[in-house]
Amino acid sequence: MRIVLDTLGGDNPPEEVAAGGLEAVERFKIELLLAGPEKRLAPLLEERPHLRDRVTILDTAEAITMEDSPAEAVRRKRNSSLIKGIKALKEGLAEAFVSPGNTGAVMAAATLHLGRLPGIDRPGIGATLPTLAGGRFLLIDVGANTDPTPQHLKQFAIMGQVYMHEVLGVAEPKVGLLNIGSEPNKGNELARKAYPLLTNLEGFVGNVESDRILQGGIDVVVCDGFVGNILLKGLEGAAVALFKLMKASIKKDLRAKLGGLLLEPALRRLAADLDPKQHGGAPLLGVKGVVIIAHGHSDAEAITNAIRVARTAVENRLPKRIEQGIAKRGGLGWLASLRRRREGRKEAE
Amino acid sequence: MRIVLDTLGGDNPPEEVAAGGLEAVERFKIELLLAGPEKRLAPLLEERPHLRDRVTILDTAEAITMEDSPAEAVRRKRNSSLIKGIKALKEGLAEAFVSPGNTGAVMAAATLHLGRLPGIDRPGIGATLPTLAGGRFLLIDVGANTDPTPQHLKQFAIMGQVYMHEVLGVAEPKVGLLNIGSEPNKGNELARKAYPLLTNLEGFVGNVESDRILQGGIDVVVCDGFVGNILLKGLEGAAVALFKLMKASIKKDLRAKLGGLLLEPALRRLAADLDPKQHGGAPLLGVKGVVIIAHGHSDAEAITNAIRVARTAVENRLPKRIEQGIAKRGGLGWLASLRRRREGRKEAE
Repeated sequence: MRIVLDTLGGDNPPEEVAAGGLEAVERFKIELLLAGPEKRLAPLLEERPHLRDRVTILDTAEAITMEDSPAEAVRRKRNSSLIKGIKALKEGLAEAFVSPGNTGAVMAAATLHLGRLPGIDRPGIGATLPTLAGGRFLLIDVGANTDPTPQHLKQFAIMGQVYMHEVLGVAEPKVGLLNIGSEPNKGNELARKAYPLLTNLEGFVGNVESDRILQGGIDVVVCDGFVGNILLKGLEGAAVALFKLMKASIKKDLRAKLGGLLLEPALRRLAADLDPKQHGGAPLLGVKGVVIIAHGHSDAEAITNAIRVARTAVENRLPKRIEQGIAKRGGLGWLASLRRRREGRKEAE
Repeated sequence: MRIVLDTLGGDNPPEEVAAGGLEAVERFKIELLLAGPEKRLAPLLEERPHLRDRVTILDTAEAITMEDSPAEAVRRKRNSSLIKGIKALKEGLAEAFVSPGNTGAVMAAATLHLGRLPGIDRPGIGATLPTLAGGRFLLIDVGANTDPTPQHLKQFAIMGQVYMHEVLGVAEPKVGLLNIGSEPNKGNELARKAYPLLTNLEGFVGNVESDRILQGGIDVVVCDGFVGNILLKGLEGAAVALFKLMKASIKKDLRAKLGGLLLEPALRRLAADLDPKQHGGAPLLGVKGVVIIAHGHSDAEAITNAIRVARTAVENRLPKRIEQGIAKRGGLGWLASLRRRREGRKEAE
């Protein structure tokens, strides 16, 4: 299996990103295509000569930045590491694409060059978040589609179920519709129209409010990309703010200061556990190929994690499973069919 | 000044709610109309005989619960403390209404019985949240209107500015449009259409993303009621989850346990500061009268705070100021006119 990594995206290009990629090659049975400037990448590879026959550099110095307009960048920056990487995926030179870069540009490039899966109207971006119960859940969509239709939400739900089943190993993924109340007639027009469509989806548990999602018990939370993006960033902002407030209140008196010192290792572990950049990035679901968008702040370890996620998605043939799920419309027997196919694959191996 | 308090709303009816009301009578120069069962309220009043000539009981045992459908409750439960309280406001028996009850029912009853202010198409519910900078900001709308128009958002913005100026004393309230990016063309259809309308509003600072609102610097954050409700509950859920996770990680080893013990008072202070139920509730803006919705979990202290907010709103003639703001459309000289009117009132006193 070969994975292409866009080393010029995010806040730490290209050395830190590439280091995460090389670490993934050490740990997993994969080959790596490093899209980025050979001049700066070759020295890293020289430090790990034993990896040389499993890593290829796709030389380019052009980068799409976080400030670039996605549509324009995709048109004009054809030699960028992002576009070259996506094209390598399209041409079969790799089986998955990982980038910590501009989310909109990854989405635009993937839709343009890879195309959508049959039956998918709009690709969606998922984000996995931790729960108090110890697992994780997928929030989809978190920004690809600001004004989707009810039918799009149903497609997000099915894609989310496939992702949670194939990549995170949840046997029967439960789906909730993000809403402002539990009754079916609650919410905005989109939510009210999506609800009856979702009742035909196996695993649908009804509406879910945003103060409950972190408790656990729901595996896929479906919403439009505007609400999803605002909720995701709101949760991130709340976590950052709480840690800052805590630090400030720890400094206020000697007793608290001492307590803070003693507590520090535990709090550090907690912060790391909550940190979205440590958790393998956000899958772009619904395109023809495995595309994983890592957090822009990703360090080497986060990139290694994103590549692990990509590898699991490839092994479980995620795009194919999504296509089958959409064809089945998530109807009766849908979750059982997901499980059967998976068990069948395991036996075949 | 007389304020009517719905004692049968929320999780702690009627004694705890009434206790908060009586405490407000002790502390502030107000009279109180207690809507609730005389049988249970009279004994509380007997304990504070010196308040007897400033407190009147509006006897009723009927309650609108959190589970009641707002529209139905307003039609059928005409003798409830909520409806009787709103009607007392309408009839001029009181100048403000405070309730920890069913938000939808308060909104429906207020719109039906009090009516909207001239120029207001839709009342909006605001919620004030703390910032890292130490102040608070108003998020509006948090649930009254799930599918508003761009024009409604502009009205929310103006009402929010008046509230922050008159009730929280912010000299020149800054307004941001909640969005998923900073550029004017970002967001869903509603946000894209609202942006150009808001550029004519004095104090408008452009789009604001949800991970920035807690940092401070923006006084009014405008959004539709679906997004606002989901963001508000998401932030509450994140705070609860983080404290739970912290508690769990504190228990893990002896060192952390000791640290947690030492830190506990500081963390308690922090939790109290963040607790929305301690912060005076959410104003329903745009109706003919001062209506404050306290959190359902409100204890006595939170109710006292909500009454303080209501008193400030009455003193500063909040509904009148909103009406004037809407007439001025928030245009040039709008913030200066707000300030001048306020200074004029102060001099007149």
